Amino acid sequence: MISIGVDTKQRAYDVLIGSGSVKDFGRLISEVKKPCKVMIVTDDIVNGLYADKVTEAIEKSGFTVSRFVFENGERSKNITTYANILERLAQEHFTRTDLIVALGGGVVGDVSGFAAATYLRGIDFVQLPTTLLAVVDSSVGGKTGIDLIAGKNLAGAFWQPVRVICDTDFLSTLPDERKADGIAEIIKYGVICSKPLFDIFASGRFEEKLDECIAECVKIKSDVVSRDEFDTGERRLLNLGHTFGHAIEKASGMTITHGYAVAIGTVIAAKTAENIGISCPCSQDIIDALKKYGLPVSCDYNKETIINYALTDKKRTGVDIALILPEKIGKCIIYPIPIEKLNDIVKL
Amino acid sequence: MISIGVDTKQRAYDVLIGSGSVKDFGRLISEVKKPCKVMIVTDDIVNGLYADKVTEAIEKSGFTVSRFVFENGERSKNITTYANILERLAQEHFTRTDLIVALGGGVVGDVSGFAAATYLRGIDFVQLPTTLLAVVDSSVGGKTGIDLIAGKNLAGAFWQPVRVICDTDFLSTLPDERKADGIAEIIKYGVICSKPLFDIFASGRFEEKLDECIAECVKIKSDVVSRDEFDTGERRLLNLGHTFGHAIEKASGMTITHGYAVAIGTVIAAKTAENIGISCPCSQDIIDALKKYGLPVSCDYNKETIINYALTDKKRTGVDIALILPEKIGKCIIYPIPIEKLNDIVKL
Repeated sequence: MISIGVDTKQRAYDVLIGSGSVKDFGRLISEVKKPCKVMIVTDDIVNGLYADKVTEAIEKSGFTVSRFVFENGERSKNITTYANILERLAQEHFTRTDLIVALGGGVVGDVSGFAAATYLRGIDFVQLPTTLLAVVDSSVGGKTGIDLIAGKNLAGAFWQPVRVICDTDFLSTLPDERKADGIAEIIKYGVICSKPLFDIFASGRFEEKLDECIAECVKIKSDVVSRDEFDTGERRLLNLGHTFGHAIEKASGMTITHGYAVAIGTVIAAKTAENIGISCPCSQDIIDALKKYGLPVSCDYNKETIINYALTDKKRTGVDIALILPEKIGKCIIYPIPIEKLNDIVKL
Repeated sequence: MISIGVDTKQRAYDVLIGSGSVKDFGRLISEVKKPCKVMIVTDDIVNGLYADKVTEAIEKSGFTVSRFVFENGERSKNITTYANILERLAQEHFTRTDLIVALGGGVVGDVSGFAAATYLRGIDFVQLPTTLLAVVDSSVGGKTGIDLIAGKNLAGAFWQPVRVICDTDFLSTLPDERKADGIAEIIKYGVICSKPLFDIFASGRFEEKLDECIAECVKIKSDVVSRDEFDTGERRLLNLGHTFGHAIEKASGMTITHGYAVAIGTVIAAKTAENIGISCPCSQDIIDALKKYGLPVSCDYNKETIINYALTDKKRTGVDIALILPEKIGKCIIYPIPIEKLNDIVKL
């Protein structure tokens, strides 16, 4: 089992990664939490696959376990699911010393983390990510939240888990599209700050080095989060590919998945960096690597459409937009420019 | 204008108290915030009384002001009002650097503070309390939140305002019942840790020393909050009278107001302390002072009813309940006892 420490102002905690670890979940949780009530929050797919096994493992260590199950998918990441979780916690008299366990992917982690952040003004939660995307990205760093009618991730809180534990065997049941979400994030980490990670990826040996790749991503994220917990500076680098990626997702009416959209968004960022002369050309390397894993590198929307959708994104500050652009594989910069200039510099 | 500093881990900020200060609200906000978008959140009563004046004062300093108005009363402190505020902020493209201004009493401050705490994972907010209760208690210290169907204040966040400004002229339009809410809190502060404050109060000279009394309460609260921001220890002292007070409110179906209920709850706490021999007798002093301001000192519910309602209160931790009991006027202690023993010691 690989252990990576995350150090934040709110608390320090460990991310534990290992194949077959589900049987130890109870013991691993009891290392950070005395026996108490536990609410496992999960979606209907993960519930059918893993929730019984996880419940059994946790009960063995003396916890009293309830379960809240909601319909899988981004559409459930809304204020209704959030409110229903809170009401259930209250009905079952959960106190400040009890625990939420988020068992699932990013949607489960985000919404149950937000419930944990705000029930009785904050109770502890543990993340048990079951997707590649969740383990390398959303389960680490304390960003929790829900979508509003007006847009994605517009409400939430910074709330760190007390522990993150991933049984990498859980990832084997992922459908290809969900796996692509994670792979797009991993390549993102490589481009941002780890040429060695990018090279493993580009060589096509990613699957055989799965645990190490995941650990390297978590380590990168942990370092960035430790230095910029509240996302006011360096942490924005992790948005590489996301400004255009979110725009493409929205333009497609969410028919292009997050991972596919981020892949395309990362290529646009690289081409844009080349267009304004701030990078060694690296877009072709990125394209080659993405193609190796069946990820898309372009889309049918034109520049105007993508820019328009990008400008409804929450990452605007005043009238500047902060683009994340690669200088080379392993180094990115935050590049703020006035919104009006976007059309001149963006290259698809 | 009296200024009191509050120092918390989240931020340091000032509480400003003064008669006629509304005309300076714009300048006082611009001392802590560059010109930006402002959403004034208020209820329909305060909207009719003060919102135009406040808007004008804030606009004068270069802010762009919108307004969100909801129906007055505790029943609006729910997830629907909260969600509607968030959607409005998103529709009007509020960014992380914009501002919410809570203009009103405790309900307005709590729900708009919670919206500020969670919109884009946290934006700044200013409290402009218009009730005695809000200025001496709820506007200071960063407790924000909403009620759930299952109970009061069950969801929320710790989120400190960037400034609190009270024009004490606003308090003159308060109906007697709302004024009683504030007076009950002030006597609470006196009993907890300020005999001089209690003595002003007991002498009947409270109205003529209004600004100083308010300032003294804010100072007490500020000191306690600075030492225990997240309510894990000393801050619980501020719950004097509230465990039984909330129980009485609930038993009455909310027909007994918060202030009246806290007054009765404080008397019960004092009599209980005498009953178990931990206090110099002080319940009679408290009763005399409360009566001077027309506040009730007892109710028709029996001990069993009050205890049953108290045990559904969120302030339980495991199987102990932490009572706040006065040892004498100016000194209280946290007294944890097993739930089963409540019936033996409580005295009405």
